[in-house]
Amino acid sequence: MAQDASRKEGRRGRRRDATAAPTRTPNYRQLRNPFPVMSVFSDDEAANMHETALRTLEELGFRVLLPEARTLYAQGGARVEDDMVYIGREIVEAALASAPRSIHCRAGAAHRDTVLELGTLNFQPGAGAPHATDLNRGRRPGSARDYRDYTRIAQHYDVFQMMSPSVEPQDVPVHLRHYFTTLAQMELTDKFPFMFARGTPQARDNFEMLRIARGLSEVEFAGGVHTYTIINTNSPRTLDMPMAQGLIDFARAGQLSIITPFTLMGAMAPITVAGAITLSHAECLAAITLAQLAKPGAPVCYGTFTSNVDMKSGAPAFGTPTHFQASLAAGQMARMVGLPWRSAAGSAANINDVQAANENQMGLWGCLLGGATVVIHAAGWLEGGLTVSYEKLITDVEVLNMVAELCAGNRAGADEIGFANALAHVAPQGHFFSAPQTMERYSTEFYEPVVHDYANFGTWTDRGALDANQRATGVWERILADEPPLMTPGDRLEELRAFIDKRTTEGGAPPES
Amino acid sequence: MAQDASRKEGRRGRRRDATAAPTRTPNYRQLRNPFPVMSVFSDDEAANMHETALRTLEELGFRVLLPEARTLYAQGGARVEDDMVYIGREIVEAALASAPRSIHCRAGAAHRDTVLELGTLNFQPGAGAPHATDLNRGRRPGSARDYRDYTRIAQHYDVFQMMSPSVEPQDVPVHLRHYFTTLAQMELTDKFPFMFARGTPQARDNFEMLRIARGLSEVEFAGGVHTYTIINTNSPRTLDMPMAQGLIDFARAGQLSIITPFTLMGAMAPITVAGAITLSHAECLAAITLAQLAKPGAPVCYGTFTSNVDMKSGAPAFGTPTHFQASLAAGQMARMVGLPWRSAAGSAANINDVQAANENQMGLWGCLLGGATVVIHAAGWLEGGLTVSYEKLITDVEVLNMVAELCAGNRAGADEIGFANALAHVAPQGHFFSAPQTMERYSTEFYEPVVHDYANFGTWTDRGALDANQRATGVWERILADEPPLMTPGDRLEELRAFIDKRTTEGGAPPES
Repeated sequence: MAQDASRKEGRRGRRRDATAAPTRTPNYRQLRNPFPVMSVFSDDEAANMHETALRTLEELGFRVLLPEARTLYAQGGARVEDDMVYIGREIVEAALASAPRSIHCRAGAAHRDTVLELGTLNFQPGAGAPHATDLNRGRRPGSARDYRDYTRIAQHYDVFQMMSPSVEPQDVPVHLRHYFTTLAQMELTDKFPFMFARGTPQARDNFEMLRIARGLSEVEFAGGVHTYTIINTNSPRTLDMPMAQGLIDFARAGQLSIITPFTLMGAMAPITVAGAITLSHAECLAAITLAQLAKPGAPVCYGTFTSNVDMKSGAPAFGTPTHFQASLAAGQMARMVGLPWRSAAGSAANINDVQAANENQMGLWGCLLGGATVVIHAAGWLEGGLTVSYEKLITDVEVLNMVAELCAGNRAGADEIGFANALAHVAPQGHFFSAPQTMERYSTEFYEPVVHDYANFGTWTDRGALDANQRATGVWERILADEPPLMTPGDRLEELRAFIDKRTTEGGAPPES
Repeated sequence: MAQDASRKEGRRGRRRDATAAPTRTPNYRQLRNPFPVMSVFSDDEAANMHETALRTLEELGFRVLLPEARTLYAQGGARVEDDMVYIGREIVEAALASAPRSIHCRAGAAHRDTVLELGTLNFQPGAGAPHATDLNRGRRPGSARDYRDYTRIAQHYDVFQMMSPSVEPQDVPVHLRHYFTTLAQMELTDKFPFMFARGTPQARDNFEMLRIARGLSEVEFAGGVHTYTIINTNSPRTLDMPMAQGLIDFARAGQLSIITPFTLMGAMAPITVAGAITLSHAECLAAITLAQLAKPGAPVCYGTFTSNVDMKSGAPAFGTPTHFQASLAAGQMARMVGLPWRSAAGSAANINDVQAANENQMGLWGCLLGGATVVIHAAGWLEGGLTVSYEKLITDVEVLNMVAELCAGNRAGADEIGFANALAHVAPQGHFFSAPQTMERYSTEFYEPVVHDYANFGTWTDRGALDANQRATGVWERILADEPPLMTPGDRLEELRAFIDKRTTEGGAPPES
């Protein structure tokens, strides 16, 4: 860049030359959490919570609706009475000892592989929503088109290392829906895919489709972690049929279960952070134990999603101080058991307004300071998960990209401090536009925003006074305007479609409950 | 609450009873920063930055436009050539040794007093804006009415421990403006007040008015820190006349100067975080030195406000990863010198949209994790400080209140973990609405939002589908609808008005430059 450094140019000159300048190539694909870990409780308090969780499983018990699961618990040494299992701490401790601390998640391309362990950081877009919304079309039931579009937008941004359950394609019949969602993921994304655990036939179909798409033998498939599901308990202290079955199916197939009690303090969980996280911890330990009893060494992720209800209306709230502290407390428990930890951001707002932004970011910081391995609902989630917003997906990406930039750290070597190439170069009240240090770095030093606009009020007004949501609409429209490249080779996609045709003819696989 | 615990009631029942329940009385007035401190550079790198800053002052020098200031530097041992001063490190080190580490700021009421030292946390609303905006009236030049209204809203929320320069009352003549702003603060707020340093006559007037309002003798006034100003350097490496004079005036009066180089990386500061903070550090040390030379032991706060420009447009950006890292770096330097540290959040957005929310909160977290003592522009700031927004003041208060809630921490004693009073009380898949623990705490456990709305989509739509900004309008309108109580006794206000009348007749005091 010597030729640049020798020129005297203001900002305009630099802009003209920008195509020739080095460009930023940040790596958002494999992140490590750079933030200091924050605890909300003392170590003694956290140890008492763990102890109380073990006592809860031993004395109060865990309701397990699936007979096969109860049999597994009984074989592991638990006492079973009707549908209640009472799990001794030695059984839980053995399960924690066999659960892997680090999970290599294999994506459709090696550069998309990601590792789940304490210290790594992974983001997922908002997930599991029955509705979708955007400024053009308003709020509506989620559709096949929404599922594909949402998948494409999530694929576009490296800062999402994992796909999520995203939005429910309600216009696809339930007995065929998993064919649609898995095919769409294989076509449109090369990231670590999500699959629902809605009964053994669906799980078997999903695994077979993934094996075809990735070109893996059954042995190769079983030898790696190629997909994951999310297992929710029914708080308090219940594991229902499909969730227990999914946990067993995924464990036996060597695939990942992210085990997440979803608890709202003051409703299905105690009103205190300590009580709610103790309950969540107990349920998570019980489910981890089942996975390890089904297959020792099965990959599991310790999950939490605990926030509070608004005690005036009973409505769920997110991004609150209580949600934040619950994340810190859950992170403490995850560090105690040493497993990768799945947390959640999210918003209760009904549209992507200032509330939605502030809630999501507040929740995100709780996860980040809690030492989260995975942050789900990190973007796009509204109404406590009833809706995903296209615009919010974009505006939250801006925040996540900034966090990813912070993961890269910064340096203060002699060149960066710049006594010779910057400080001594500029007279008092001068400017640094043409300092050698500036000329070397102007095109690479700063993060370039996706949707934030730095134009002054006059320019911004002249350009139409578009708010962040209106600009975000333009951003996702441009992403979707391009023809999407296929992420799985054509012959495998053909084989996949043939498999789906055959299974459809056979009647598909209705979800089980 | 035993009678409550014995009743079987859902949420409705509890709501009816809410007036009898204990209410939350959070103390947001004296906060300590609960967040772990984050560094962006190694200790060695930070030490090299400090060393380079000292070298900058010794070898490159500092331009000082006020002759009296140059005389003070020279008397302190600095070499002076024309308007340049070259300050040896021993002079800086002596200044740092005499600057107090802890500053007790005296407000109009003792419960409003606040301490500035590393570890405490104080917020100020957005400050220094020439314009004001709100949804009802749009963007306009700041007025006397705006100044008073903004002061009243800031007074309303305990989470602002200090008043700020807020908005410029452009309809008040400049030679009388300080009478108006000081009188307004004495009438409308009992918080630690801000006063501009715009020439010795204005400073003298301000001190006299404050002495009258507080009922203090001259000796009493000089014996405590009753007000503060903000001293900006003209980066790079320049201290202009009014700022140097203000620094000397406030130091000699024993009042606080928050010394803040305002630097934009890539423009008036190096493009790197390390370079920009090294420059800012050098300028801050130079100004601290002047204050200590004027009066050893004078209260000063180490200040920083460094963000980046958008290299495409040259426009200032806030709440960026670079702004965040600059806050972390500045916090490292502040800890090195041991002084209370003033940081800044802020937004470049033109309206209070999702960008504005995300920028402000991102910037805030940089300050919090950097260990800030004071966060200025923590609420209400738009357009990089050209405008303050009434609605943004409210929506940012929500975020600050949540941070204040986090300052209070949480507990996990036996009652909070709640094996007996919660966990054992509720059957699997039951609810905790009537658990003893819930009944004891339902009215006090959770933060109650100012403007966030947790109603579901249907209810929210039925109520008019108001976004956060529209609701915020209602919030500030309700605050301003009440007659404000006078914060200074009526006889002192009369004396104050008589002083102002006299000084007005004498011609007031034009700002000096």
